[in-house]
Amino acid sequence: MGLVVQKYGGSSVADAEGIKRVAKRIVDTKKDGHQVVVVVSAMGDTTDELIDLAEQVSPMPAGREFDMLLTAGERISMALLAMAIKNLGHEAQSFTGSQAGVITDSVHNKARIIDVTPGRIRTALDEGNIAIVAGFQGVSQDKKDITTLGRGGSDTTAVALAAALDAEVCEIYTDVDGVFTADPRVVKKAKKIDWISFEDMLELAASGSKVLLHRCVEYARRYNIPIHVRSSFSGLQGTWVSNEPQGDRKVEQAIISGVAHDTSEAKITVVGVPDKPGEAAAIFRAVADAEINIDMIVQNVSAASTGLTDISFTLPKAEGRKAIDELEKAKGAIGFDSLRYDDQIGKISLVGAGMKTNPGVTADFFKALSDAGVNIELISTSEIRISVVTRADDVNEAVRAVHTAFGLDSDSDEAVVYGGTGR
Amino acid sequence: MGLVVQKYGGSSVADAEGIKRVAKRIVDTKKDGHQVVVVVSAMGDTTDELIDLAEQVSPMPAGREFDMLLTAGERISMALLAMAIKNLGHEAQSFTGSQAGVITDSVHNKARIIDVTPGRIRTALDEGNIAIVAGFQGVSQDKKDITTLGRGGSDTTAVALAAALDAEVCEIYTDVDGVFTADPRVVKKAKKIDWISFEDMLELAASGSKVLLHRCVEYARRYNIPIHVRSSFSGLQGTWVSNEPQGDRKVEQAIISGVAHDTSEAKITVVGVPDKPGEAAAIFRAVADAEINIDMIVQNVSAASTGLTDISFTLPKAEGRKAIDELEKAKGAIGFDSLRYDDQIGKISLVGAGMKTNPGVTADFFKALSDAGVNIELISTSEIRISVVTRADDVNEAVRAVHTAFGLDSDSDEAVVYGGTGR
Repeated sequence: MGLVVQKYGGSSVADAEGIKRVAKRIVDTKKDGHQVVVVVSAMGDTTDELIDLAEQVSPMPAGREFDMLLTAGERISMALLAMAIKNLGHEAQSFTGSQAGVITDSVHNKARIIDVTPGRIRTALDEGNIAIVAGFQGVSQDKKDITTLGRGGSDTTAVALAAALDAEVCEIYTDVDGVFTADPRVVKKAKKIDWISFEDMLELAASGSKVLLHRCVEYARRYNIPIHVRSSFSGLQGTWVSNEPQGDRKVEQAIISGVAHDTSEAKITVVGVPDKPGEAAAIFRAVADAEINIDMIVQNVSAASTGLTDISFTLPKAEGRKAIDELEKAKGAIGFDSLRYDDQIGKISLVGAGMKTNPGVTADFFKALSDAGVNIELISTSEIRISVVTRADDVNEAVRAVHTAFGLDSDSDEAVVYGGTGR
Repeated sequence: MGLVVQKYGGSSVADAEGIKRVAKRIVDTKKDGHQVVVVVSAMGDTTDELIDLAEQVSPMPAGREFDMLLTAGERISMALLAMAIKNLGHEAQSFTGSQAGVITDSVHNKARIIDVTPGRIRTALDEGNIAIVAGFQGVSQDKKDITTLGRGGSDTTAVALAAALDAEVCEIYTDVDGVFTADPRVVKKAKKIDWISFEDMLELAASGSKVLLHRCVEYARRYNIPIHVRSSFSGLQGTWVSNEPQGDRKVEQAIISGVAHDTSEAKITVVGVPDKPGEAAAIFRAVADAEINIDMIVQNVSAASTGLTDISFTLPKAEGRKAIDELEKAKGAIGFDSLRYDDQIGKISLVGAGMKTNPGVTADFFKALSDAGVNIELISTSEIRISVVTRADDVNEAVRAVHTAFGLDSDSDEAVVYGGTGR
């Protein structure tokens, strides 16, 4: 009967009805004897509407002001949620990120949490309140400016608060029933995962699974905060993410946790790079200086006759233009022939700690792809993951083939049930 | 070329176009060599929309959470305005009421400013920024909770900041050209007032003139901050409110500043009150304990035969129900016969410092009303104001008659020109 942190996404509080439904769920948790801290996102499309307004007044909104603008969204949802809870006869107080002690660095629009000092939250709880906290936002340590944490930031707020308050669990409420063995929109027979280790969840998140963001899982692992991903509509048990299965739940760790895919990346190939020390470093320095995150890197075997090689890497499509520009600028200094840009690629990843002890996994993975007629362009591996890049058009078929080949398909013929009655 | 505080109301920043127009005006002021602090209200109908949302989740929203909700409105408008200014090539930073150092008491929804500590604003100005401040909001001194200042609170924010920063002038931008000798919607020949003293403006505001709120004018008088009320659409000189006419402007103080009217009040008559010491005190203590503001009070001459008298007073209609309830509760203790409630009344007030030295004003006022066939129910006077209560239906006719009788009608036949192209 300890402290529970619950996070509700924008789709769960999209309108007054949603807010009232969520309020009832929160009150039920409180009635069970828990102290409850709730992290809430902006209502439904609020954030998109605010972004649209910003674009109408300025083509390049300043980061500081953009954050000031966006944080209005959670301010609205959290105040309404607190009102709805009080209307059910329970005490509630809402807190901005700043009031909740979410201290960040000064990188507007994608700030990182560097400390959490939840003194006011602790006081509110001790006085019998349910504490409602604005997700996605904080205050910068040096300038005391309002910051936002970037996409999925509310999940990170929830986990960070759970860690600072030593919570029993951080419940992430969403509009699906949990984490699945593959994206249920692609694989009808995908199964809900009852429990998954932090490590496997990190790899799935890094490989394109959208349910939890990498940063949030990383934070939870560092402070050993169990995450329970579940539907705000159904009330069913969802997916537990933790070091070990919870309590007396007997959950055997699967050899393979799931198949993730990602079509948000593009591939850049740097053609005709002199094959000598320092060339790759120069290329990736140019890209890194522009704060572009690259994912996979492959260097071809050098052609002995020319002494030239090609280097390919993948990166978010959104950063493709910038990377090309930066590389063109550095072309003289680096000395390559040309650049090729390809945004019609997709990535399929197989994740599971069981790979470490099952050497046949890689072979089975390639065979499944080959049987499905999928051509492989790049390969990268970690201890518990293997990823390939294919044509974007082949991705869905590849995911389904791999899912079946590794015995992940659900026995049921039914499509996965979403808890939602809408978004 | 000192510091100017400008306040823009919700109608001036109702949409992206409005925000861009206001941004341009602000930049022009900055280019003239001024330091500029801007106080901004929420966009157009934002506040009403937020109130509507609150009512959907709770019939009686908690004050603290209601303030948290409403303050999202200025957060949006101020961030967008700062972006729009930066887009014109000037530096701007937005600040919440709390960040701007607007310290209030803890009375949610109608907090009073008790201190202004604008250290961050001063720093932003010294660094060459235009400072944009959220109107209407502050932070409570004891609990550090977000508060709002109630209706017209943004004007008060502007004047309070102007005082704390020792500004040259506080410009209040609105959708009319200034303060008029009467409400132009009622009196077509109403004239814009070029200059009016704090004292007369206070009386007009207290008597129903909506352009500036009483609290704001009071604050400006206390700190001797000249207010310039003007249109954000036209760019014309508006109305100066100050101790003395500005600079070398030769403006003669009129005998009569204007005619105000108010149909927002109701009248309660307490019938059959024993005419003995302490009775009136008991009645008004009951009402005051419920934090109801009463306006005019009239006690009838006691009828010698019964030893009973009637006491009438006016109060905001919105508080009528509460006052009746409180008085009914105290009926036994006070000892009166019955209560009469009348919300079909109106009040007409004639305001002007010239009254002090022109004893004929009162007689002329009553004659004008009598000639117009308007019956008078209650009378109250101050040194520079005389007010009467009439039937609500007679108010417009009474205002026009008095306006004409005191020679306030404009020579022009044209209706007053509003600067706005819409709200």
